[in-house]
Amino acid sequence: MKRIMLTVAYDGTNYHGWQIQKNGETIEGVLNRCLSELLQENIEVIGASRTDSGVHALGNVAVFDTNSRIPAEKFPYALNARLPEDIKVRCAREVAPDFHPRHCESRKTYEYRIYNAPFPMPVKRLYSYFSYTPYDIEKMREAAAYFVGTHDFHSFCSADAQVESTVRQVDEVTIEKKDEEIIIRVTGRGFLYNMVRIMAGTLMEVGRGHRMPENIPEILEAKDRSAAGTTAPACGLTLIKIQYEV
Amino acid sequence: MKRIMLTVAYDGTNYHGWQIQKNGETIEGVLNRCLSELLQENIEVIGASRTDSGVHALGNVAVFDTNSRIPAEKFPYALNARLPEDIKVRCAREVAPDFHPRHCESRKTYEYRIYNAPFPMPVKRLYSYFSYTPYDIEKMREAAAYFVGTHDFHSFCSADAQVESTVRQVDEVTIEKKDEEIIIRVTGRGFLYNMVRIMAGTLMEVGRGHRMPENIPEILEAKDRSAAGTTAPACGLTLIKIQYEV
Repeated sequence: MKRIMLTVAYDGTNYHGWQIQKNGETIEGVLNRCLSELLQENIEVIGASRTDSGVHALGNVAVFDTNSRIPAEKFPYALNARLPEDIKVRCAREVAPDFHPRHCESRKTYEYRIYNAPFPMPVKRLYSYFSYTPYDIEKMREAAAYFVGTHDFHSFCSADAQVESTVRQVDEVTIEKKDEEIIIRVTGRGFLYNMVRIMAGTLMEVGRGHRMPENIPEILEAKDRSAAGTTAPACGLTLIKIQYEV
Repeated sequence: MKRIMLTVAYDGTNYHGWQIQKNGETIEGVLNRCLSELLQENIEVIGASRTDSGVHALGNVAVFDTNSRIPAEKFPYALNARLPEDIKVRCAREVAPDFHPRHCESRKTYEYRIYNAPFPMPVKRLYSYFSYTPYDIEKMREAAAYFVGTHDFHSFCSADAQVESTVRQVDEVTIEKKDEEIIIRVTGRGFLYNMVRIMAGTLMEVGRGHRMPENIPEILEAKDRSAAGTTAPACGLTLIKIQYEV
């Protein structure tokens, strides 16, 4: 028995998120089915980030155990031939049998993209959130700086999440303006449910002048979801990469 | 009666190209229907570039005549409310009644994108052509330089095209490598049927070492479609902009 780690990329548009559920196709469900068919074993992957419905990934991580003799590096070829066009494996390698993608220390990087122009752009619609209002990028950068560090992100966690602690460490938040796109890039050690989307929604409110950068500390202190901004739409969010310290 | 010029952006994935046809939805067909409904007149647009099935546009151009009193600059708002998500109008302005988007002098810019990595990337699949083989960008640039100028592009025109002359002027061809994408950008004064896709297909063969940059002049001189490379797939092609000298 060996444990294989996959780096998985997907277009989340047509999926009900990562995690298996009764109604609707999920990334996890498709991976389990394709792996089980390929290996003729009952395979159940463990995912690193259980991304929401409509969220994309360039590099989510999943592990599974198998008795197969297929060398790890051959898995992308064998799997991609079975996977649909909107889910592909980019890399596979063997890891320690006790490696758990959610319990091991990691740094995750997400990007939230806003297509900011007078009218929507069809080729951008699936991977960014369209908004025609002007944004003050400098103000957004000032606000973003308050997120960096170890804070209680209770206000930035969807109410229905059940977690022991809402304290998380954010390493970096950058905001880049590239042609007509605004890209919010967040790196941290684990995120709460909807945390990046609520951060993005709140930063957008700052950019539009509806909140001040200096409001961020009091929103954090409130430890109340209603103190923060709206949850930005899923299509703008992409999980870029997950780095493990192993 | 006045003539309105629209700048139109679309994701060509789900359309049978620009030009109206009996079977299948087209960009022209959708524009005619939405404009006719909006204005309660029988509107037939004239397009600048009749892009193929699956080709995208950030800025194609279309004109139409109307008796409507709606100011030109209001058209994007009124039309976008009726248009599907994958077709949007970015700009509208009144032009001279004799302005014809195909007969007036213009410079068109196209981009052909290749996603060049060991495995396909789902979020890139709709707007680029996936290829895992290595490309020699310098060789592609050397080859591209031979296209610049006024040449008979007969070898780069699909056989079934009926045109008076196959002489065209190419102003610029650049090849950029950006992360895992290779972007071939072509600017010229009018293009033959499939010309940019055959140029892209031929440049890719040079990049893979199957042809030499020095072969381009003899391919041009052959004036024979079979002398050039394959027609690169439609999904990688995007019409970026059309500039008129008026």
